[in-house]
Amino acid sequence: MSTIDDVRECQGGVTLARGFTAGGIYCGIRKAKKDLAIIRSDKPAAVAAVFTQNRTQAAPVLVDKIQLQRSSVCSAIVVNSGNANACTGERGLNDAWDMVKATARALALPEDQVMVSSTGVIGQYLPMEKVLTGIVELVPRLSGSGGQDAAEAIMTTDTYRKESAVQFTLGRSVVTIGGMAKGSGMIAPNMATMLAFITTDAVIGRPLLQKALNRANRHSFNRITVDGDMSTNDTAVVLANGAAGNGAFGEQSEEFQLFCAALEYVMIKLAKMIARDGEGATKLIEVCVKGAKTETEAEAVARSVANSNLVKTAVHGNDANWGRIMAAVGYSGADVDPDAVEIRFNELPVLNRGYEIVLDEKKAAEALAGEQVMIVVDLNRGKEEARFWTCDLTKEYVHINASYRS
Amino acid sequence: MSTIDDVRECQGGVTLARGFTAGGIYCGIRKAKKDLAIIRSDKPAAVAAVFTQNRTQAAPVLVDKIQLQRSSVCSAIVVNSGNANACTGERGLNDAWDMVKATARALALPEDQVMVSSTGVIGQYLPMEKVLTGIVELVPRLSGSGGQDAAEAIMTTDTYRKESAVQFTLGRSVVTIGGMAKGSGMIAPNMATMLAFITTDAVIGRPLLQKALNRANRHSFNRITVDGDMSTNDTAVVLANGAAGNGAFGEQSEEFQLFCAALEYVMIKLAKMIARDGEGATKLIEVCVKGAKTETEAEAVARSVANSNLVKTAVHGNDANWGRIMAAVGYSGADVDPDAVEIRFNELPVLNRGYEIVLDEKKAAEALAGEQVMIVVDLNRGKEEARFWTCDLTKEYVHINASYRS
Repeated sequence: MSTIDDVRECQGGVTLARGFTAGGIYCGIRKAKKDLAIIRSDKPAAVAAVFTQNRTQAAPVLVDKIQLQRSSVCSAIVVNSGNANACTGERGLNDAWDMVKATARALALPEDQVMVSSTGVIGQYLPMEKVLTGIVELVPRLSGSGGQDAAEAIMTTDTYRKESAVQFTLGRSVVTIGGMAKGSGMIAPNMATMLAFITTDAVIGRPLLQKALNRANRHSFNRITVDGDMSTNDTAVVLANGAAGNGAFGEQSEEFQLFCAALEYVMIKLAKMIARDGEGATKLIEVCVKGAKTETEAEAVARSVANSNLVKTAVHGNDANWGRIMAAVGYSGADVDPDAVEIRFNELPVLNRGYEIVLDEKKAAEALAGEQVMIVVDLNRGKEEARFWTCDLTKEYVHINASYRS
Repeated sequence: MSTIDDVRECQGGVTLARGFTAGGIYCGIRKAKKDLAIIRSDKPAAVAAVFTQNRTQAAPVLVDKIQLQRSSVCSAIVVNSGNANACTGERGLNDAWDMVKATARALALPEDQVMVSSTGVIGQYLPMEKVLTGIVELVPRLSGSGGQDAAEAIMTTDTYRKESAVQFTLGRSVVTIGGMAKGSGMIAPNMATMLAFITTDAVIGRPLLQKALNRANRHSFNRITVDGDMSTNDTAVVLANGAAGNGAFGEQSEEFQLFCAALEYVMIKLAKMIARDGEGATKLIEVCVKGAKTETEAEAVARSVANSNLVKTAVHGNDANWGRIMAAVGYSGADVDPDAVEIRFNELPVLNRGYEIVLDEKKAAEALAGEQVMIVVDLNRGKEEARFWTCDLTKEYVHINASYRS
């Protein structure tokens, strides 16, 4: 049987899978930084998507939801950074539709096969003349090596490009899944201020693709938090254009399990990159909750710890303040027995059952000093677990967010 | 009918009401700062209390809950700062009981009439020799003018003492309610890392006193947030010793309404002082949500906005980033219509219905530059409202919490 071990990690992003082109340029929304991207599939691709659960939804999210009802395939996605086109009312909706129409026209596609995403400042209107001119300029430049430019163009306060890709074999066909994402503030579970676009050449129908996305999303983008603020624009889209020519498979098949594992691999990698690149962050924190009765319980505790400003500032200061972790476990809403809880930093035991404190301050500070810190919380009441990723909370976060718009 | 207008604000704290003494000294838990306080009632007082809802509860909280079952009256409360005696297991429980016993012995009180509170670092054992010596030293110094020393002794990272008091007339008796509190990090609704002790000379039975406390608590200590982290030690206690000699009153009486209003006044004042003095804070932010269908809905939206790191950093930077407020409204869980929402800073309209942006950046920056900022969110769907208090999020918060233990 195929397993995740059959999945090979590769260099590349949204243009690694066959039949996809992309590009990214500067159109003038931001100051001297690429701000407009397009991803194109040669053939209409099966499409699946998940969106923010915020009641305040940005115009492009509202437009995409309509597009997904109008058409079961998608051939292009246009994305801008620098402006979220959120809280912009009727005018913002018209602007999002105009981006769709302009992209469809420039690519000679049916309008219902184009999706749109935006990220950046909330509550300001898009400079549409620049955007529409940019779309016309960008289309001729789309190429099979344009994934990197596209990944750069969707960045906002991100400090590095986020791409991830894998290959694996389905029957006799090599299948590729590649993606790109952007973070970096307003990141919270369900989901984050994040955009992710994933392309694959797998042959897979839309309903199965959506199931695979939902499953992978639960373990990746819904498991990261930077500041607990849920965005208005969060979007993750997967396009599957079938260019790999693998045989069809059903939900119970080994092939589907492998596809899901591969998609999850790509998405978790992107999710961790987003968490590590949280605004002002200097460390990636992985919170691993074990010994829970249910995965939902493990998730609740992990989320609570990962969202704690006090835990995140303590990790920033290499301070083994496990008491703050216990406090966050306690207010997670999970029905835990504090007396049974064990805590470890990486492999180092800090607290054993019955509040037996085994903290070696020096070793703990060393464990926390790394760029990747794992906080293990064992609830000792079951066999389920969940992982959550976040970053430390720093003065730089405050600096960035006290003056983001200026 | 008596109203809140009949309530006079006074200088003073826990020793303003008749029949209460208090004091605070340095016993050696902290570095060169008062760290031990006792409040004493001459006569056994009716007692009401509310505690943290964190599953991880500190030893003194567990002890107090037992004390409240053992006795319906309380004559003294002993409090230390510098060490929370939380996550300290069996040994911590014994230490809390030893504080109770030592205080009872020194004051010649039945053990079940003494309560105990602790605040400070989690997960470290109390230096009991110092604490017990301190109790014996402090008891002879308790006095009717010792409220201020007590208020200083319970401070942790608080930058100022928090006291509040009122007087009003019930029948022919002048009744006093006075209190003290400490904040300042790990402040979250339901409740905060906060301790509050309130004394009154009113004649009021324990069941009514508890009802009054619950009601006032909902509108005060449960409406403040600094960092969303709920503490293990939160405690608010009210003692009513009856020294004012007013006539008894029932739940439906005007007198009870007045007592509740007065208690709420004192507690809201303390709550706002805690929010304003949040770690690293430079401003008090009041979030006022209007036009909700229910108070619970208004509370949910106000909590969401007040807890948003992004809103709090924006206010810190005098940045009129109302989009972040809309995002927080959207993820509050309340069933709001974003299109109907209006936002004002103090009296200044920023957003009208239908996303009509009426923001004057210059005026808005001025409104945000004050030491007190009111964010008004009108949901335009009902008549209920709720207020929440918080502070701005600053680099100093990170600084304090990245090295709190050292």
